Amino acid sequence: MITRLDRLFLERAYELAARGAGSTSPNPPVGAVLVRDERVIGEGYHHRAGTAHAEAHALAEAGDARGATLYVSLEPCALAGRTPACAQSVLDARVARVVIGTRDPTRNGGGAEALRARGVDVAISDDPEARELVAAFVRSARDDRPFVALKMAMSLDGAVAPRPGVRERLGSAEEERYVRDLRATYDAVMVGAGTLRIDDPQLTVRPPRDRVRPYARVIACAREPIDPKHRVFARHPGYVKTIALVPAAQRERFEALRAVADVIEVDVRKGMDLDLDAAMAALRRRGIFSLLCEGGPRLGASMLASGVVDRIYWAIAPRLLGGPDTVPVLAGAKIDGIQIRFDRVEQLGPDVMLSGTVARV
Amino acid sequence: MITRLDRLFLERAYELAARGAGSTSPNPPVGAVLVRDERVIGEGYHHRAGTAHAEAHALAEAGDARGATLYVSLEPCALAGRTPACAQSVLDARVARVVIGTRDPTRNGGGAEALRARGVDVAISDDPEARELVAAFVRSARDDRPFVALKMAMSLDGAVAPRPGVRERLGSAEEERYVRDLRATYDAVMVGAGTLRIDDPQLTVRPPRDRVRPYARVIACAREPIDPKHRVFARHPGYVKTIALVPAAQRERFEALRAVADVIEVDVRKGMDLDLDAAMAALRRRGIFSLLCEGGPRLGASMLASGVVDRIYWAIAPRLLGGPDTVPVLAGAKIDGIQIRFDRVEQLGPDVMLSGTVARV
Repeated sequence: MITRLDRLFLERAYELAARGAGSTSPNPPVGAVLVRDERVIGEGYHHRAGTAHAEAHALAEAGDARGATLYVSLEPCALAGRTPACAQSVLDARVARVVIGTRDPTRNGGGAEALRARGVDVAISDDPEARELVAAFVRSARDDRPFVALKMAMSLDGAVAPRPGVRERLGSAEEERYVRDLRATYDAVMVGAGTLRIDDPQLTVRPPRDRVRPYARVIACAREPIDPKHRVFARHPGYVKTIALVPAAQRERFEALRAVADVIEVDVRKGMDLDLDAAMAALRRRGIFSLLCEGGPRLGASMLASGVVDRIYWAIAPRLLGGPDTVPVLAGAKIDGIQIRFDRVEQLGPDVMLSGTVARV
Repeated sequence: MITRLDRLFLERAYELAARGAGSTSPNPPVGAVLVRDERVIGEGYHHRAGTAHAEAHALAEAGDARGATLYVSLEPCALAGRTPACAQSVLDARVARVVIGTRDPTRNGGGAEALRARGVDVAISDDPEARELVAAFVRSARDDRPFVALKMAMSLDGAVAPRPGVRERLGSAEEERYVRDLRATYDAVMVGAGTLRIDDPQLTVRPPRDRVRPYARVIACAREPIDPKHRVFARHPGYVKTIALVPAAQRERFEALRAVADVIEVDVRKGMDLDLDAAMAALRRRGIFSLLCEGGPRLGASMLASGVVDRIYWAIAPRLLGGPDTVPVLAGAKIDGIQIRFDRVEQLGPDVMLSGTVARV
């Protein structure tokens, strides 16, 4: 049974976990709180892969955790890896009760059973918030691709620009801040070549917190060559070399990019678009376990049509761009076989942000 | 000064006011609560034009209201009309204090000053909720047109149908219920002829409460004749004869409608679309003080472009209709010179409803 007080401490564990988001990949962000007599005696979160897990930080801070309750956002690992198995550390510390945010469905799981078998009282809350924290970890453990979120911004009439080739600044300052914070929780950000040509974005991350892991920027190219002078190809400390996904059959067109970018050749599907399944698998092999795609309309539609999108962030500006030449928010591919569920609706200054899950059906 | 307890009683007044919404036109819905020693001693709301005002109902229920506080959603009227001026009734009842939701900016206003001049303690809260209750009343008192809300439903990629002429059921059951309730608070509902041809809607109101005032359904026609057998032209008890707005220059094309509809001839603007300013003025003269327009894309865009829309309701379904032939949510007119502000964002089952104000700029 999980009480209201338990819930408060779990929420604290989620807050702590979120501090590591963006830095822990390929591990998930995890937070832990140790409580005795309704008082916090230790807490911590996982900072980066290869270093101490959240439970170890909390146990170290508490010193003596005998008889305490451990609140942890993710089921403690039962496997010893580069660090000792957390389930064993919890047993060794003689913690009396463990309250878990969500199960670990990967091969690292099983900590709950290991603890119960040794007499620890274990409760599992199975919270959506806890599941969201580990979604990228679970996706990249299960499948040969990163966890992918697609972020688009459009007018209330579903357009991104009044006519092709025009840059339209749709998002408010609040929306831009939201997206910058969002980027910081992903391993990489990606845009299509069309967006690069029109907007010339830097795709940099200005997080309020320090980022431990180098950040990747990815450009998905179709057929037309790309100017290596685009700002995204400038080297920045804290960023890996910008990745360019280019069609293998047209590799010679992208020769000029090799000086500034990490060029990955990808097969082309349907004669036109990159094989995005193959592209995602290639990014996963580069160590990118979560990816935020920020459009444009053609890449966004291809990503959705390929079934590689796990989550959407859809910003809506209170504007109307209507007219015969408007550029729709999604272009090209016909999208079938996916199901969207909104799970969050937020007002960001004048804009609205709808977000939700995408599942293949 | 308005206390938290005052706020609770004001909210009760708004609840009561809403019971009359849809039935009071051309008067606004108004609710009133009389309180003495923190206990309600009388309450009421305005049922329909020509009958007792909210304050009169509350005073009658209380019997003796000496020293009480009156909470009323709208400033009491200072003018005697078909019923006595409420400000005078409040003074006669020796009410000690009056807490007002919002000012009456029309020529009926001035009750607050009249009361203060006679020693009553008057506080004005100026709540958005109170202003919204009287928005239609204020609009139709100021301008030669009804208060107009535009309700559209679209997919997440801004479309209403995968191709022209196809009916697409976009809204969920929750969204449909919301819109039915919304209709009941307006004097009339309107759609364009294209929507009539594709959807053949009845545009009936199935309100959870009784509706006192007859309801009007309006069809805006462009050039093509309309089949008089459409369901909207069937007579229903509680509805006035369905109104057809037709282009004056093409009146002979709409002769067949005269048997089933109240045909209003309207000038045509720009060679194509009805002059919607003239159309709205004609509806206002028919006694329609508030109008809910439910599309389609062409009429919606024309209404927005004409600057006659005061409020939008924009339903977004978690679906993607994307493709080369999709019908966008707004079509035709280029829309300039309006400013939209979202003021409410709601989840309706799987859908999201954005609503907000529209102002000319």
